[in-house]
Amino acid sequence: MNTAVVKESPVQAEDFLPLNGTDYVEFYVGNAKQAAHFYKTAFGFQSLAYAGPETGVKDRVSYVLVQNKLRFVLTTPLKTGSDIAKHIDMHGDGVKVLALWVDDARSAYAETIKRGAKSYMEPVVEKDEFGEVVRSGIYTYGDTVHIFVERKNYSGAFLPGFKTWNTVYNPEPTGLQYVDHCVGNVGWNEMNTWVEFYENVMGFRNLISFDDSDISTEYSALMSKVMSNGNGRVKFPINEPAEGKKKSQIEEYRISTAAPVYSTWLSLPITLSKPLRRLKTEVWSS
Amino acid sequence: MNTAVVKESPVQAEDFLPLNGTDYVEFYVGNAKQAAHFYKTAFGFQSLAYAGPETGVKDRVSYVLVQNKLRFVLTTPLKTGSDIAKHIDMHGDGVKVLALWVDDARSAYAETIKRGAKSYMEPVVEKDEFGEVVRSGIYTYGDTVHIFVERKNYSGAFLPGFKTWNTVYNPEPTGLQYVDHCVGNVGWNEMNTWVEFYENVMGFRNLISFDDSDISTEYSALMSKVMSNGNGRVKFPINEPAEGKKKSQIEEYRISTAAPVYSTWLSLPITLSKPLRRLKTEVWSS
Repeated sequence: MNTAVVKESPVQAEDFLPLNGTDYVEFYVGNAKQAAHFYKTAFGFQSLAYAGPETGVKDRVSYVLVQNKLRFVLTTPLKTGSDIAKHIDMHGDGVKVLALWVDDARSAYAETIKRGAKSYMEPVVEKDEFGEVVRSGIYTYGDTVHIFVERKNYSGAFLPGFKTWNTVYNPEPTGLQYVDHCVGNVGWNEMNTWVEFYENVMGFRNLISFDDSDISTEYSALMSKVMSNGNGRVKFPINEPAEGKKKSQIEEYRISTAAPVYSTWLSLPITLSKPLRRLKTEVWSS
Repeated sequence: MNTAVVKESPVQAEDFLPLNGTDYVEFYVGNAKQAAHFYKTAFGFQSLAYAGPETGVKDRVSYVLVQNKLRFVLTTPLKTGSDIAKHIDMHGDGVKVLALWVDDARSAYAETIKRGAKSYMEPVVEKDEFGEVVRSGIYTYGDTVHIFVERKNYSGAFLPGFKTWNTVYNPEPTGLQYVDHCVGNVGWNEMNTWVEFYENVMGFRNLISFDDSDISTEYSALMSKVMSNGNGRVKFPINEPAEGKKKSQIEEYRISTAAPVYSTWLSLPITLSKPLRRLKTEVWSS
């Protein structure tokens, strides 16, 4: 039957969710200024933009960093009991938003909602003197969300509401280029649910699969299915724990971060080239 | 009357709470490893000790830094809903413990409890292969506590339960010497309550007072009474907001940190000597 064929090979002739790449990754953290200092010093990120009380945002501060095609947003709550604070209590410093760069945020929202996505944010138009940005958002695993960012009519530093962040302290870049993939660590028996979500709701395909005989140590194991969008610019491996002598890596990570079900790892394309010796010295050995 | 004279001049002939100085300052923070990296890079602190799951502590990680007589402990919770997490939600990254170095932690506890202190921790003896430490603790303003540390029979890196923290990344010291004073910012009409606490419960004296004509700007003002122990090694200014055109500095700080009543500032003896140019560049201008 036609339906069965579609399910087995979910890559469609026309991509209903064309993605240009990762737009930004937003972390909810306990101390955004110190986190920014860390990513600047150890990873060579550069200061890009800022939002907070000085720009009219009352409940949070956000520092935005950039390095080549990577943009990180580091956000700290200013109010007790906020959703941001609850996320930090639950997950520690962690990823909240995996934002995806699109040409049409309204269409991205409509197409994914139509296919069963849970809405996080209906399309919103934000404007300032540099133009306008359209953003919309849907939930993925756990508390993590995807925000679709349409910025073709915008020339500002980051987004409306942010001002350029100029700093005196600007360590050299380390050579990081772009977000290669972002890993979602889900609970027992939940990998296929989220594989199907990325297939059916977002039009991704399963690029490659690893079972516990591929990824294991003496003590732990995991299974992984790598989901990719049509042009391969956005890849989300979905990991699930597997039985090992001891707890799996995923299970240990989930327990150690106190996250009941889901958590997100971010991977960058790291090779030990010369500028990255500093990274190795400052981060991995500290 | 004799009582009135004692109240007006609370310095007693014999110091019932002899203090050798500040032992350590413990901060509850969202990301202890990044905070440690920040204090190392920007302030020139050195790696000293570590406690966490690897040393048998299940619910937190603590990184200890040192520079001359300064010791900072940076602690992050590993469990959701813990007291540490609640402190961070309420105050943001902030000081929890102002630890005081004593020769007799049992006596320090007994003498302050006898004078009305609220107990935080009865005297506890902790031991390892480097000897033993006795610690006890009392509450001060808000959620902040004083822990009395008796370490005359101890030769380890920091405290029993901590292991030496050796790192490859060790920026140069900036020249910070010791904790000069720690400021407590209390609410309206509460300065004198805490001045009396330090006089009556801890045997401190009021070294100097500033009113709103001494400390004010066009928009804000504050009052401050500096409390000092007998030998002057421990100084705690107690600040209270005063009426100004706009909110006072204290009131603004209290609102911005979402702390309903109390918060703590830490001051270090900073002069702009040569090694501190790095500090100025890396922290104040970032």
